[in-house]
Amino acid sequence: MTRHIVEEAQLREVVGLDLTTVDVIERAFKALKEQAVVMPPVLSMELPAVNAEVDIKTAFIPGFDGFAIKVSPGFFNNPSLGLASLNGLMIVLSAKTGLVEAVLLDNGYLTDVRTAAAGAVAAKYLAPDHVGTLCVMGTGVQARLQAQAAALVRNIGEIKVWGRDYEKAVVCASELEASLGIPSSAIADAEEGVRTSQLVVTTTPSAEPLVDASWLHPGLHITAMGSDQEAKNELAAECLRDADLYVCDRVSQAALLGELRTARAHGFMDSDPAELSDVVTGRHRGRRDQSDITIADLTGMGVQDTAIASHALSMISRSA
Amino acid sequence: MTRHIVEEAQLREVVGLDLTTVDVIERAFKALKEQAVVMPPVLSMELPAVNAEVDIKTAFIPGFDGFAIKVSPGFFNNPSLGLASLNGLMIVLSAKTGLVEAVLLDNGYLTDVRTAAAGAVAAKYLAPDHVGTLCVMGTGVQARLQAQAAALVRNIGEIKVWGRDYEKAVVCASELEASLGIPSSAIADAEEGVRTSQLVVTTTPSAEPLVDASWLHPGLHITAMGSDQEAKNELAAECLRDADLYVCDRVSQAALLGELRTARAHGFMDSDPAELSDVVTGRHRGRRDQSDITIADLTGMGVQDTAIASHALSMISRSA
Repeated sequence: MTRHIVEEAQLREVVGLDLTTVDVIERAFKALKEQAVVMPPVLSMELPAVNAEVDIKTAFIPGFDGFAIKVSPGFFNNPSLGLASLNGLMIVLSAKTGLVEAVLLDNGYLTDVRTAAAGAVAAKYLAPDHVGTLCVMGTGVQARLQAQAAALVRNIGEIKVWGRDYEKAVVCASELEASLGIPSSAIADAEEGVRTSQLVVTTTPSAEPLVDASWLHPGLHITAMGSDQEAKNELAAECLRDADLYVCDRVSQAALLGELRTARAHGFMDSDPAELSDVVTGRHRGRRDQSDITIADLTGMGVQDTAIASHALSMISRSA
Repeated sequence: MTRHIVEEAQLREVVGLDLTTVDVIERAFKALKEQAVVMPPVLSMELPAVNAEVDIKTAFIPGFDGFAIKVSPGFFNNPSLGLASLNGLMIVLSAKTGLVEAVLLDNGYLTDVRTAAAGAVAAKYLAPDHVGTLCVMGTGVQARLQAQAAALVRNIGEIKVWGRDYEKAVVCASELEASLGIPSSAIADAEEGVRTSQLVVTTTPSAEPLVDASWLHPGLHITAMGSDQEAKNELAAECLRDADLYVCDRVSQAALLGELRTARAHGFMDSDPAELSDVVTGRHRGRRDQSDITIADLTGMGVQDTAIASHALSMISRSA
């Protein structure tokens, strides 16, 4: 057996955020309902002494040659050292023997891509058909990738970028306009962004809600993907109550780490909601009408990691 | 930063089962009580479809430059393919930045060594001073290593090896006599082994008790290290009840995965027992008398992985 040690640069060459990758992640969502996937709860380690956290995710998907174990460290003092906060790697073990097939030293790149691709899947199935305006909240790597992901599945008329730091929103909008060729502008008012958009993607690590329920309007889809830790919260609890449809990626995770946690803490959403994979597989009809208000709450799942890692390995084999 | 990708052969060159390694693991047990160690519950994934399981352990020890994330796959159909069941690797992340410092492709070697070294720590603190006879139950890699570990901390007069398969016990005894220079023999009767020994180490994956409480006798120490999954059990529940002292490595783990689980299922051991690290740090006096009957129940901890991985990296730096 060849064991691959793969660096980030090589992974960037073979895996990008495109429709192929979106299809890979869409199939991972399907597998979650249609196959006997084994996906244990996230191993989450808080390291307050060094202002850090480490998450470990994994999932075994029957029929795949291998399965990934993904280690995601977030060390939030890193920017003061000139380093990115988020890093990490993926290990791929043989599904037949458990032997190490590959170590993907991606520094979080594959996680970024599979997270954005899940946003594309959510937008594909839940956003209104016509997205005149996309509002991206947040100005980091994931804000850029989510805009790119949305543009893969909808014809976006214009992009509005909101950030806590307006200057960063200006830079982000300028870069998006250049890379996607879609008119993009920074906005200072989050309310304006939500009220005037048909698709909103929140990508922040906020601990306080950014989106008020009074801003929701017919024909809106929101994907909230910033909340993946107990302390994070991007949508006011009433948003989940008031939407025509709320789905998450995994109920057990969203109840601990996602918007669902906060909503339940406010007494809403007692019964278990549908999952995005129910919509992808047709078990749930999803958006019933163009005027529906829908929300997708994505915390990130091990099946996405196994899917993107397997895809990366097959692309590497093909290019070898 | 140099990032190390280290193969098993190189790890075997720099890390062995010796008093240096026992000291490294003893200090890990100390750290558990004396420092603000962060050690989350084991991530355990059962894969019945392929007769396999994967465990992931980690621990952050303040003052260490890095911390290990250890992936231990057990694929129990492997022997039919001519492969070992147990494999795996350790990732070492910087404790300051979370960046990957090393990937130790040890195929489980460091786990074998740190597990045996914990047995040495248990024997050092809990076995009677004079161990005329050591009985090893089981005939695999860990049976051999536990005998070697015991011989590091006690002058062993003779070794008796018991196994389900007598032929394998004969081979194991012969190898131990050759490698350790201690008279060793296979025995067919587990009861004889326990009744005539001062130190017993059980190293099997048994699901049924191997040791009956009626066999216990004054001046006996048992280390049970085979039980690390819910279905495993090496000591009859009454052994824990009848011993003068029972300690485990981590109460929260032993209550789920160790002998403590079975004993509690039988209605014994309601209150939380001491941990081996309490004895190592002098918080618990341990054996009070040479005639005491003591038991140590070891399920394996992330602190051992971080300690042995850090030791391996420092040895590699030194040899570079």
